[in-house]
Amino acid sequence: MNHYDLVVIGTGPSGQKAAIQGAKLGKRTAIIEKGSVLGGAQINTGTIPSKALREAAMHLTGTSRQGLFGESYRVKRTVTISDLVGVASQVIRHEWNTIRDQFDRNGIDLVWGEARFEGPNLLLVERPGGSEMLTADKFLLGVGTRPAKPENIPFNEASVFTSDTILQLQNLPRSMIVVGGGVIGTEYACVMATLGVRVTLIEGRNQLLGFLDQEICEAFQYFMRQAGITLRLGEKVESIRQISAEDRNGKESGNPAVEAVLESGKRLRAETLLYAVGRQGVCGRLGLENVGVSFDDRERLRVNEHYQTLGRDAEGQERVVEHVYAAGDVIGFPALASTSMEQGRRAVCHAFGRYEGNYNIDLFPYGIYAVPEISMVGKTEEKLTEEGVPYEAGIANYRELARAQLLGDDRGMLKLLIHQQDHRILGVHVIGTGATELIHIGQTVMAFNGAAEFFINNVFNFPTLAEAYKVAAYNGLNKLAHV
Amino acid sequence: MNHYDLVVIGTGPSGQKAAIQGAKLGKRTAIIEKGSVLGGAQINTGTIPSKALREAAMHLTGTSRQGLFGESYRVKRTVTISDLVGVASQVIRHEWNTIRDQFDRNGIDLVWGEARFEGPNLLLVERPGGSEMLTADKFLLGVGTRPAKPENIPFNEASVFTSDTILQLQNLPRSMIVVGGGVIGTEYACVMATLGVRVTLIEGRNQLLGFLDQEICEAFQYFMRQAGITLRLGEKVESIRQISAEDRNGKESGNPAVEAVLESGKRLRAETLLYAVGRQGVCGRLGLENVGVSFDDRERLRVNEHYQTLGRDAEGQERVVEHVYAAGDVIGFPALASTSMEQGRRAVCHAFGRYEGNYNIDLFPYGIYAVPEISMVGKTEEKLTEEGVPYEAGIANYRELARAQLLGDDRGMLKLLIHQQDHRILGVHVIGTGATELIHIGQTVMAFNGAAEFFINNVFNFPTLAEAYKVAAYNGLNKLAHV
Repeated sequence: MNHYDLVVIGTGPSGQKAAIQGAKLGKRTAIIEKGSVLGGAQINTGTIPSKALREAAMHLTGTSRQGLFGESYRVKRTVTISDLVGVASQVIRHEWNTIRDQFDRNGIDLVWGEARFEGPNLLLVERPGGSEMLTADKFLLGVGTRPAKPENIPFNEASVFTSDTILQLQNLPRSMIVVGGGVIGTEYACVMATLGVRVTLIEGRNQLLGFLDQEICEAFQYFMRQAGITLRLGEKVESIRQISAEDRNGKESGNPAVEAVLESGKRLRAETLLYAVGRQGVCGRLGLENVGVSFDDRERLRVNEHYQTLGRDAEGQERVVEHVYAAGDVIGFPALASTSMEQGRRAVCHAFGRYEGNYNIDLFPYGIYAVPEISMVGKTEEKLTEEGVPYEAGIANYRELARAQLLGDDRGMLKLLIHQQDHRILGVHVIGTGATELIHIGQTVMAFNGAAEFFINNVFNFPTLAEAYKVAAYNGLNKLAHV
Repeated sequence: MNHYDLVVIGTGPSGQKAAIQGAKLGKRTAIIEKGSVLGGAQINTGTIPSKALREAAMHLTGTSRQGLFGESYRVKRTVTISDLVGVASQVIRHEWNTIRDQFDRNGIDLVWGEARFEGPNLLLVERPGGSEMLTADKFLLGVGTRPAKPENIPFNEASVFTSDTILQLQNLPRSMIVVGGGVIGTEYACVMATLGVRVTLIEGRNQLLGFLDQEICEAFQYFMRQAGITLRLGEKVESIRQISAEDRNGKESGNPAVEAVLESGKRLRAETLLYAVGRQGVCGRLGLENVGVSFDDRERLRVNEHYQTLGRDAEGQERVVEHVYAAGDVIGFPALASTSMEQGRRAVCHAFGRYEGNYNIDLFPYGIYAVPEISMVGKTEEKLTEEGVPYEAGIANYRELARAQLLGDDRGMLKLLIHQQDHRILGVHVIGTGATELIHIGQTVMAFNGAAEFFINNVFNFPTLAEAYKVAAYNGLNKLAHV
């Protein structure tokens, strides 16, 4: 029976980085994957496929250049699913190779199979045709989540999808109802609308992506509606059913196959429906009772600040399970690939007594690959107001930037939130081309406690979108000069 | 007669930012333009048009996505000059409006005409149908440069161009000889090759863009040759002549209209030739003798560290002309729009006694809008070696980055130069998609004296090109761990 210093369960972002960190610290490390491919939801059903679709859709339909070539400009008039999935598959295959190569180079043992704790340090790994036992000093659970699939929703492979099955679409539908205005629902709604699908997005709250700065969110919702997406905010779905051929009203356009009834009484019909409300953990079959780790009713784990899992002792008192760590989606918000990677790495550093410096959770960036792209770091205006921090906002509109003109994006915007007294940067909010890349300039300034004057004195390449920082700093400091 | 605190001559990047800074300091400011449009070479003949052409060419030919859609993929099979110039004109018109709007908003008087000093503080501005006199306390010369046009080269509007006239090309030629491997020659060579023009680039030195890091330059030259560009390095042009119809050898392909004879004896023929060797100032008609400012034989100005111009007194001793500043291309290297803007702004701050903090010229970025894009900040490996600074290089290849895969760019590269002892970042060198934007993350870390560990601890959005910093930092620190 093999003994390891570290065993990681799951090959998604948190697991990958955890295993690599373990190996880099000189620890004997194994990583276990129960699926048939590496990478988890990030590579196979989530992050990468949706971003690949987005890139392909943006390019093939010419959306990214309509400002330059006119609204009727399309690179390819008819986009088929095979165009799109072809692109995604190529990237996915490449990522599999990259991950496997990293495991190999770092001497990490890759074990295929489904893991189950048989004791505090004992793991059974089962796979078709065999099983093996492993022991380890430390464990990292990076088992991820899967889309929630309520039983009263008639999921199928032709018209009612989760984000895990949406890529199996055989043809581009004429219309789609998206239920859930979180990151996944919003991103798919935008990509589908870009491809010419008539999209209705239903969200129970009055705003999409509630963690965003209000002004950015407003702009985003405006752009979505301008792109032809119908937003049904503050609406809840009461029931979803498939429509049989006999049910159909002959006059209906498209080919409605699914109907959603809202609590408000509205009936919506479309060719397809994507259900993107909630994800849930997959801890039920891990044998966690044998190691003393508990999970909630959505099969998610709770951790302390070191990413050590929590459980309950015989008296029902909460206790830390010191040798079992968890990271990534299974521990909840923010559930982004970027943060999951860092959680996995940090957890393993802690497990082997390596101090990794300060860990400023306020500097985690958020990236939304919608149309347009959105990214933020630090606080929103609403949060600063709530906390009583005096700030001024400096705005740069992309239409003031030569590079944005060259790219045909005249609707993007970058906002700096600047402390009124010491001019420190408190938050950066970007919507528009390159937002997820651009944010890192502001994030770096924040990490070093820099002030808005940094951007005034810094020389930016011309023409770049990065110049937006200078324009926004001028705008904000001008306002402050008149306070 | 109007009196101003500040008069700026020239509406290019240095003049624009100088005038705006003057106005922001509450000074009565005028700006003079002798051309028929605003913006100087940046907007009308240089930076913007060449970048607009590049963007349009990259997109219309599908070059930016060939990694994804295959080498034979082209968005539009036949690209005409009107496709390209249409895009440039739209951006140029927009920039004119932006500049004029900025002048208006800041209360800057815009004066059309050609300026000439009649005395140390007295300026005559002449224009068709009238002239006026102005006086001012301070002057900023941002008069720019124009392409050098040696008399022995038969420039014309059909086949032998400078960078000022190349946009007048009526049709895309089959072939082009580019003389001069500086920034302008290199950028046009890449754009033309992207458009399917057979390009030969002639450069007297053994390497293009001599200020680049050697490794980046090698990669760049490799990519250029792979794109079908013939590089003739270490070669000088002896003569250039037009070929008459009778001269032509009937068997020659294309329609050669110009012949360049190299000193090595080689004869090169092509349909067109772009001469891009050297630019020269335009100071001869400014009446600088009346204010005591001298210029060199290429009509360029010299300045001190505050951007005050230099002249000679009656005894031939060098002296500072304290109230006349100069900035931008007319004062020489680096002659980039980005640095010119900052020079203009700094000069005016100094003129009115405003201290603008440290000015670290080592943190000026360089951006080359070639195919692929190149950018750098800080020192090259060669420079560090020469200075005896011990460093290690950390490399990230784009093919390791998911975002680069999604964008179809698998040849880009980011290199961090890391101090061997304290791990400070000494230089950043990027070739590939987004290089001119990405560089600013590294530049910011350098400005705050940050170390490579910053990138390890920082969370980057996934998937982004910005992740290259983390990959490169790991690579470099791994090497250092084994020193």
